[in-house]
Amino acid sequence: MRASSTGEIDADRLWSRLSELAEIGKSEGGGVTRLSFTEEEWAAKDLVASYMREAGLAVREDAAGNLIGRREGRVEDAPVVLTGSHVDSVRNGGDFDGPLGALGAVEALQTMDERGVETERPVEVVAFTDEEGARFSFGMIGSRATAGTLTPEHLANEDENGVSIAEAMRASGLDPGRIDEVARAPGSVYAYVELHIEQGRILESKNLPVGVVTGIAGPAWLRFTLAGEAAHAGTTPMNLRRDALAAAAEVIGRIEREAARTGTSVGTVGQLDLSPGGINIVPGQVSFSLDLRDIDEDVRDDVEARIMHEAALLCEKRDVELETKTLQRLPPAPCSALVQDAAREACETLGFEPFGLASGAGHDGMHLTELCPIGMIFVRSKDGLSHNPAEYSSKDDCTAGAEVLYRTLLKLAGET
Amino acid sequence: MRASSTGEIDADRLWSRLSELAEIGKSEGGGVTRLSFTEEEWAAKDLVASYMREAGLAVREDAAGNLIGRREGRVEDAPVVLTGSHVDSVRNGGDFDGPLGALGAVEALQTMDERGVETERPVEVVAFTDEEGARFSFGMIGSRATAGTLTPEHLANEDENGVSIAEAMRASGLDPGRIDEVARAPGSVYAYVELHIEQGRILESKNLPVGVVTGIAGPAWLRFTLAGEAAHAGTTPMNLRRDALAAAAEVIGRIEREAARTGTSVGTVGQLDLSPGGINIVPGQVSFSLDLRDIDEDVRDDVEARIMHEAALLCEKRDVELETKTLQRLPPAPCSALVQDAAREACETLGFEPFGLASGAGHDGMHLTELCPIGMIFVRSKDGLSHNPAEYSSKDDCTAGAEVLYRTLLKLAGET
Repeated sequence: MRASSTGEIDADRLWSRLSELAEIGKSEGGGVTRLSFTEEEWAAKDLVASYMREAGLAVREDAAGNLIGRREGRVEDAPVVLTGSHVDSVRNGGDFDGPLGALGAVEALQTMDERGVETERPVEVVAFTDEEGARFSFGMIGSRATAGTLTPEHLANEDENGVSIAEAMRASGLDPGRIDEVARAPGSVYAYVELHIEQGRILESKNLPVGVVTGIAGPAWLRFTLAGEAAHAGTTPMNLRRDALAAAAEVIGRIEREAARTGTSVGTVGQLDLSPGGINIVPGQVSFSLDLRDIDEDVRDDVEARIMHEAALLCEKRDVELETKTLQRLPPAPCSALVQDAAREACETLGFEPFGLASGAGHDGMHLTELCPIGMIFVRSKDGLSHNPAEYSSKDDCTAGAEVLYRTLLKLAGET
Repeated sequence: MRASSTGEIDADRLWSRLSELAEIGKSEGGGVTRLSFTEEEWAAKDLVASYMREAGLAVREDAAGNLIGRREGRVEDAPVVLTGSHVDSVRNGGDFDGPLGALGAVEALQTMDERGVETERPVEVVAFTDEEGARFSFGMIGSRATAGTLTPEHLANEDENGVSIAEAMRASGLDPGRIDEVARAPGSVYAYVELHIEQGRILESKNLPVGVVTGIAGPAWLRFTLAGEAAHAGTTPMNLRRDALAAAAEVIGRIEREAARTGTSVGTVGQLDLSPGGINIVPGQVSFSLDLRDIDEDVRDDVEARIMHEAALLCEKRDVELETKTLQRLPPAPCSALVQDAAREACETLGFEPFGLASGAGHDGMHLTELCPIGMIFVRSKDGLSHNPAEYSSKDDCTAGAEVLYRTLLKLAGET
């Protein structure tokens, strides 16, 4: 694998920081829960801020709650190289999704500091607010704000307690009216590169510790609401029912079939609520989510159209009303040649195969494509697991990823 | 319809009491929610107690919270004729399910009182605690206690907040340790007869206001728990998933098909919970309820066995672990010739066709079959709707039902 002579980052420090951060929001079962604008997300940012200061970075927070640590470059007013990730998590998630990229970036910059490296361009590490969208079913809040695409309508999205993003921001001492100030000016960012776990099995199947991301699949998030008729479970014959859950079950079956048919698309129903919810009452209403993704936008949209068509037919046959609402809809995001080339060169220098792979997961970089060239470096995930307490990447693989990030940043920032 | 000359009960009073009781636990949307051992169920019992006193009954409450109003008979120590129903409701239920039987019984006894009727046997009106089981997914608490079949294990059933039946009783000032005192002695009850809405469409389709129940379908209540693996919605290919919800959806489809196949069985999945519940996470665990009923126990058990068999195969194919737990399992309960004959004779006297029909819904009487002969009188339900705010029986039909009950009670109690 990697030649030990080329290792420059402090593997023990990175691993120990990953472990320390993983304690925040950890449940007894081992999963972490750090939802946006909660005590847990703030505690995680505070810890990262302390590491940033140890790394000699100038720390600030913007109006979206993004945590930023800056290292100056040699050339005044040069566009900044951005790197980082997020420190929020899904409910009962893992230790690496987000933290590896944020702490790997801090480690890379601390290594520059300790080695007295000078770069032409400034480099900033950012821990973006709420990448996952686990709280508001709407994510990537910090990166959208950075790109200037976060709207007041977005801030109206509510969590399960009816608290909007704007309200959650205010409760955290942030002013949603100042969100526009977060947007970076056109031309002010040279490139964005993020280190992240793969969350899939491709690198593992290739026996590779790291990979260079070629593009990010575009997710469409929808909500289906099916309205039938609540009725007595004992006295309503099967053929006279308008059972919203039986209809939903059939639609969920079609979603699975249509997504699987393509070989590349993934379709997931991750949330489902029904009412009235009595053991002896035919459900009158069901609401469920759909997360649909593909690297190819046309394929994804075709799967979505087929699902919509079949769902409409199935519900009509059952006299169940169907409403669908698009929660978000992102095009796939290609990674720039600039960042891919820098990362490939870094891999080669370190003796890793510069293997290219697509990301099925969404990432903050998707929202920055209009702002700057983007790219990502992936680290092998054990069993491909993520969004799960068993999520794991070995210390060696995390180290390899941070080494690649370090060299990629040197290249992008212009080591002098 | 009925000859007006035979009308003896006070139709206006009954209807006005039904309307008054319907206000307790009513939501803005028109549905009523009166869960057991809550303020709402107690308020409903208090109101019925006030009507009992107006009817000249001696009012008491037993250790299960059953409300009882007694009218003495001529013969000392004669076995009692029991009548009544319940005043709890499902969540967002209707105005008639339960209250018609409790208030119809009070009306019948008040009519006896006002007409100076004497009976050989005493008659007691009972408003049983928690028939529906909406709070604890375990119902007919008061009638089980009356039959002496309520066990400490039953009292350990918990509501969605983890409060057990025993705890809820204590919070209401009842001593669960005294539950045995509620049981009626063998031979102490002459018969039980209950007036209730049909909650189905049979009487409506026959254009009949009332019917005589021949038997009560036996419900089996089960809980299915499916354990797959939570995973990232974007990076886990469809063919590598162990999606607990996709598996549950398929099982729900089979439940519907197997129940429908018989023409008489009904199978309902009324509750479903999943975890972790993120829009971008493949569900790792799903739990859902099954309410399965048939008039014929063999048919029901055969449907259950087929469902179990298919569910096991489907889950095995998906590498999803399946656990099932039986929450309760009641045999169908035939109605006694004693009560059916008395009710048929009452129908004939009043000019109604003595039409016999089975009950798809469960009722308190099911639990009293070991204690005494049981029977029921059904009243036509508009559109067959029940467990639904639109549940409705006309004033004329409710009146007809109370008249039949009045005459049935005279017969059973031995008018002298």
